[in-house]
Parts: sequence; structure tokens; C-alpha cells
Amino acid sequence: MKSNGLSALGRRTATPPISWLMATALARPGLISLAAGFTDKESLPLKEARQALTEILNSPTEGRTALQYGTTAGEPALRRLTAERIRVLDGCADGAVYSADRLLLTSGSQQVLYMVTEALCDPGDFVLVEDPTYFVFLGILQSHGIHARGVRLETDGLDLAHLELVLEQLKQRGQLPRLKLLYLVSYHQNPTSTTTSFHKKQSVLSLLRYYERAAGHPIYLLEDAAYRELTFQGGDVQSALGTGKQADRVLYAGTYSKPFATGARVGYGILPEPVFPVVMGIKGNHDFGSSSLLQQLLAKVISSGAYERHLVKLRARYAHKAKIMLDVLQKEMPEGVRWVVPQGGLYYWVRVPEKATSGMKSRLFQTALRKQVLYVPGELCYVDDPARPKPNHEMRLSFGAESETLLMEGIKRLAAAIMLSLARRG
Amino acid sequence: MKSNGLSALGRRTATPPISWLMATALARPGLISLAAGFTDKESLPLKEARQALTEILNSPTEGRTALQYGTTAGEPALRRLTAERIRVLDGCADGAVYSADRLLLTSGSQQVLYMVTEALCDPGDFVLVEDPTYFVFLGILQSHGIHARGVRLETDGLDLAHLELVLEQLKQRGQLPRLKLLYLVSYHQNPTSTTTSFHKKQSVLSLLRYYERAAGHPIYLLEDAAYRELTFQGGDVQSALGTGKQADRVLYAGTYSKPFATGARVGYGILPEPVFPVVMGIKGNHDFGSSSLLQQLLAKVISSGAYERHLVKLRARYAHKAKIMLDVLQKEMPEGVRWVVPQGGLYYWVRVPEKATSGMKSRLFQTALRKQVLYVPGELCYVDDPARPKPNHEMRLSFGAESETLLMEGIKRLAAAIMLSLARRG
Repeated sequence: MKSNGLSALGRRTATPPISWLMATALARPGLISLAAGFTDKESLPLKEARQALTEILNSPTEGRTALQYGTTAGEPALRRLTAERIRVLDGCADGAVYSADRLLLTSGSQQVLYMVTEALCDPGDFVLVEDPTYFVFLGILQSHGIHARGVRLETDGLDLAHLELVLEQLKQRGQLPRLKLLYLVSYHQNPTSTTTSFHKKQSVLSLLRYYERAAGHPIYLLEDAAYRELTFQGGDVQSALGTGKQADRVLYAGTYSKPFATGARVGYGILPEPVFPVVMGIKGNHDFGSSSLLQQLLAKVISSGAYERHLVKLRARYAHKAKIMLDVLQKEMPEGVRWVVPQGGLYYWVRVPEKATSGMKSRLFQTALRKQVLYVPGELCYVDDPARPKPNHEMRLSFGAESETLLMEGIKRLAAAIMLSLARRG
Repeated sequence: MKSNGLSALGRRTATPPISWLMATALARPGLISLAAGFTDKESLPLKEARQALTEILNSPTEGRTALQYGTTAGEPALRRLTAERIRVLDGCADGAVYSADRLLLTSGSQQVLYMVTEALCDPGDFVLVEDPTYFVFLGILQSHGIHARGVRLETDGLDLAHLELVLEQLKQRGQLPRLKLLYLVSYHQNPTSTTTSFHKKQSVLSLLRYYERAAGHPIYLLEDAAYRELTFQGGDVQSALGTGKQADRVLYAGTYSKPFATGARVGYGILPEPVFPVVMGIKGNHDFGSSSLLQQLLAKVISSGAYERHLVKLRARYAHKAKIMLDVLQKEMPEGVRWVVPQGGLYYWVRVPEKATSGMKSRLFQTALRKQVLYVPGELCYVDDPARPKPNHEMRLSFGAESETLLMEGIKRLAAAIMLSLARRG
């Protein structure tokens, strides 16, 4: 037969590296995984979830609603609680942008990213991303035949001068009509732990708006706020929804997976017209609505205050684990290894000296695997860009899943692998 | 601005009628919904779910696994239990086709339908469906710009002569290279309650195989077995997986939503190479795996036997409700109204006399709505086909969600609406 009958998307869809990393971590019990973004085991809210679910299922009314289909947009109570929560986080009085009618509940924020891409992008279109960015989003773009263009990062978010340069280049090449959105992981970014300032969000939206004239259509900002609630301490940065009139170009993706339970997979999108009804239609086709039971669980723990109490403990716990990892990095890593100290989230972004590489095919990655420690190679997080060689000296280390003891042991093993790799190459 | 920036898929994605029907049913408390495929409220397994979840969350090991990410393919235990369950239902000794390695857990079987379509079909491709068929699947095809071609139904499944005719026509028009699959709702079909015989499944697979030569690629049978476990009594029909060598062209979509809890949304696909790894990759991009908590819940109730005991009760309950609906249909419906008596599933497929129409814009539908009763207009279930006018005299009535009293009242109201509609038109 001439072909295997797959679609263009099917042929382009590689098994994403995250699936391989997650499966590897689960299948090798001896392996210390500093790779996948699993969350802390010990602080998982077993008691809170059990109490809430028991309460729901003890009530014939609540229980029946929980075990039945709901609407495609999701449980009304959780939509209201979530929209209100984001409004309060943003410190905004204006309710219109934070109306529950603009909010859709999903299977994690990942599903928002996928559906927004489907709603806006055709094969051959362009999407701007931070360079580096969340590698699973790059997988979505790749499978849809969409070109990613990277914008450099500074400590407070995107390099605006570089963003303007990239936009200007797209304009000059006549590619602006194919630019649909800019994807921004705005809080404790995956993988670099960078948080984008509110000022930069405003500037980004203004720049995009300026180039809309030449594009001939809206250019959206897709703000992925997955790590927003995991700030260790101190204030929250306003989301791009807080930019007033500019909010009509903001697609906000949030989640309860990371702050509550990744096993519950409840996420949400806050979307403007005309994107909201289209994503609703796509959601209807995907699964016509996510699990009512999980949505009720979240509504219950938020209403009771259990969610907020859990969050306080969780933040302290991650801050503690981040500190432990910092101590052992400082103690164990050879000279020349650099890292960013996160203020929240789950990751250290570590750079090894130039003479070692960190990619999946590198000696370092293989040595680390042999020593039973897994990390996410930085190369996975960078776009393919003819304008620069793909950086290959970084790694994402997560302090999410493993215990303190294993984090320390994992960093020791990794430091040994790096030293070995540097010695061999030297 | 020249455009709204939506993708071709985005522009093609209409809000599916099911979303409207579900929202209407939920928003009008006085409305009796014979429309949406909600399941029976009174028999929902509140106690079973509560016991299983309490047990899971009382165990630190199980609880932590349940509240954490799993793999993209899903919980190993539930994959094994499910694959084994289907093997036993099929009465097959050969394990290869029923290997857990070929099984992927999803958000309902709906997600399988969506991902299989993505994996195989490009815009402009053709898919064969029963005429009429499950209307949400038609929505998936429409949003992806895929042409649906209908194949007539007989009482034991597809009209094979018509299938051959349709295939021959596609061949003569040079469209066979764009034919990717045939979609078949094989048990108590939505909407007509037809069950396809095993013999017909074999014949369909043989026919498709014959035309593969001209197509130049595999033509798959997508078997949607959503209602398989809801047979009222008597034996099960083997799935197309039981066809031996032909099973390498079978994509099997199953679900625990309907037989256990629609609020849990656990479905699964059993897929051959090369489709399985591609759908896995797509699943990774959609949501990198469905909720571990829900998958553990299902694994627990299946292992404990609670699922099977629930199913016995559920079948009896639906049989009872189907009988009640039959009694009231016989008593209330005016002459000339015809229906198929279901042997399982959730639906009566009812045909009104020629001089009344049943579509969403019909007097009958509007009169029924005014009388606070909702049904699924048959027209939604038919493909657009220039070769025949779209049938507009049927309706799908579900005995799933409403109580006996409301089912009876609903049919009375509907009968009155039909009589009114016939009188006015007469």
C-alpha cells in the first residue's frame, strides 16, 4: 500500500518527550526523577479530597449531580468561584472580564492550550513563544504544522526589543498575516522560573495591537498561568486580564492541578469573544465537558476553605524543598555550573559549562540515566530557529515530586555525572 | 480588520447541538428532557463510588497515586482490567488483540472518536457513517472539513449492498484515496437502537479490505461500543475485535460513562499499529493523560465486583423504563406514529406521519418545547447527502435520565404536540 493512511497531523505527531519522561520515571523504581513536573507526594491533599468527596456523595442531590453529565462549559458553581478567585487575585473591581460566562472548565490547562491552538491556528501559521518555553506546547504546535518563533527572555520576562525585532521581521517577510498568537508562561515559567512583570504584559499587548494593522486580524496573548498560585511568598503579579481594554486580546489558561491535585486534572480558560464560543464548540467535540465529580470536588474544597489552607502549606513546602535543592546545588555542583533561584513554581534552570552538552543524546544525559537520575534536557524547550544554534547546555530540575532525601541524592548523582562529563570532554 | 483570526477549524466549528440541548435541559427546571443522553439519576452508584473513593484515599499509597499525574496511556491496573474485560465479553482466547498495551484510557469514548479522527483524517477526506448516526460525531467531521457519506441501516446493521454501492461510487469518482474510515455505533445504536450482527461486522471489514487496494492505504472500522454493556437481557454480540486477522483494521471505542457514571468520564480506545502510538501522541498534547483519581475509582469498583453488581441493577432498571415508555407510547401516540423497540441502550427512535416534520424549526419541535418537553430531532442525525432529501420525520427519545412519572408525562405532552401538529397541517 502506498501509505499508512494517517492524516498530516497524525504523521507530524511524534510521541511527546513528556510521555517518555513520565513513563520512564514511573517504570524505573530506582530512578530519581528531577524531570517530570509531578507534584509533591507527601503534601497531596488526601484528607481534604476524601472529606469533600464523602460529603458530596453522601448528599443525594450533590452526589447525583457529581456522577452525571454536566454542561460543556462545566459546573456553574466552580465557574463562578474560579472567575471570582482570579478577579480577587488581580485586585480588580471591574467584573466584566471576570464573568463566569467567559470561563470554561477543562481537563487541566493543557486542554486549553490545545483547543486555543485549534481555534486560531492553521498549518503554516506562526506563533511566538518564549525562548525557551514549555516543551509540550511546542509539541502541540509541531503536530499542527505551526511555526514557532522564539523571543528572548530577560529576568522580568520577554525582551521587548527582541519581540519588536521578531515582529518587524515577520512583517517584512509578509508573514504577519499568519501570526495568530504569542504564548507566555507568565508565572514562575516552565522551564526558567521567570515571572513576567505586569508592565511587560501591558507592553507586549500594546506591541501586538500595533502589528494587528499589518496582520489584518487580532493577535492574541495566550497567558499560561499554571504556576501562579505556587509563589513561595510575597505578592502576586496581576494577570494580563487586568489590563483593562487590552483584555479583549487575552486568553487566560489556569489550573487546579498543580496547586491542588494533578490527579484531578481540573483546569480552566478565560476567553474573549469570538474565541470563547469556538473553544466551547471544540470542547463539545473533544468530550462535551469534563468530569462533574472532579469539578464538584474543587468547588467543595474552595468553598470550605480547605483549598486555601492546603495552598498555604503547599507553598511553604515547595519553598522548603527549593531551599534544600539550593543548598545541595551550592555544595555539590562543580565550578561553572549556574542556576536561577526560583521564587515559586517547581523548577531550577541549570546551565552547565560550555564544554559539556545536556541534550538527550549527550554523554551527560546518558551518564545521569546510568546513575539513575533523570532531568529535562534544556534543548527540548527551545524552538528550531535558523537564526541561532539550539542551546544545548541547560537542564530543568524539578523539586516537585521527590522527597528531600532523594532530591539531595539526585543532585549529588547529577553533580557527579556533570563532573564526569566535564572531565571526559576536557 | 479583515478577519477575526480564527483557523479554518475554528470557523467551521459550530456550537454542537448537544451543548445547546444539554444546557437547555439543565437551565429549564420544568422541562422534561427526552433529549440528552443523560443516564438514570436514581440508580447512580453513589454508595459504590463513595466506598471506593474512601478506600483509595484512606490508603496513603493508593491515595497518592490517585491524586498524582499518571502516564498518558492511563493507570496500568485499569488498562489490564479493561482489556481483559473486553476479551471475556468477546469470548476470545487469543490475547494479542486484547493486550493492555494496545489500550489507552481517555475522557469518555468521545475523546477516542475525536483523536482517531485527528490521527487519520485531513480536510477533504471522506468518512462513512450509518445514516442516521451519532450526531456529535457528525459535528467532529464537520469541524474538520471532512465529508460524511451515509450508509443505510437494516434491522441487523448496515445495508451491505448499499455500502458496496457507496464504495463503488467513491471509487468511480476517484475519491477512494480520501476514504479513511467507517464509523459504526455497533450496539443499541445512537439514535436508532440498532445492533449490528457479528456477521455484518465481518462482511464490512472484508468489503473495506477489498477497496483498500484502490484506496492505497488501510480503511479502518471505528467501532463505537458505547452502549454495549446496556443490553437489557440475553447474550452479547462479539465486537469486531473478534474477527481474528481482520482486527488489525479495528479501532474500538468503549466507555465506563454510560454503564457506571457519566460524571466520571472514563473511556478507552483499543487501537492497532500504527494508529495507537499516534493517538498516544495526540493524547499527550491534549492533556497528557486523564485523571488518575477517576481511573483508580473504576479499577477499584471493577476489582471489587461492585461494577458488575451495579450493571445488573442498571440493566434491569433501563429495561423497566423502556417498558414503561413503550406502554405509554402505545397508549398515547396517535395513529401513524411508529417506533423501534430497543433491546438495550437508552433510546426509542420514533417516526411521525409524513405530513408532520420533526426538525428544530418545525412546528412540532416548537410546540413540544412550549409544552415543556424536549427531544432530539432526527434530522440532526443524518448526513448532508445530495442523493436524498434529509429525513425530517423522526425523533430520538431517551428514557435515560427522567423518572418513570416524568417519562410518562413527557410522552403524553409529546403525543399532544404531535396531534396538534398533525391537526394543523391536515
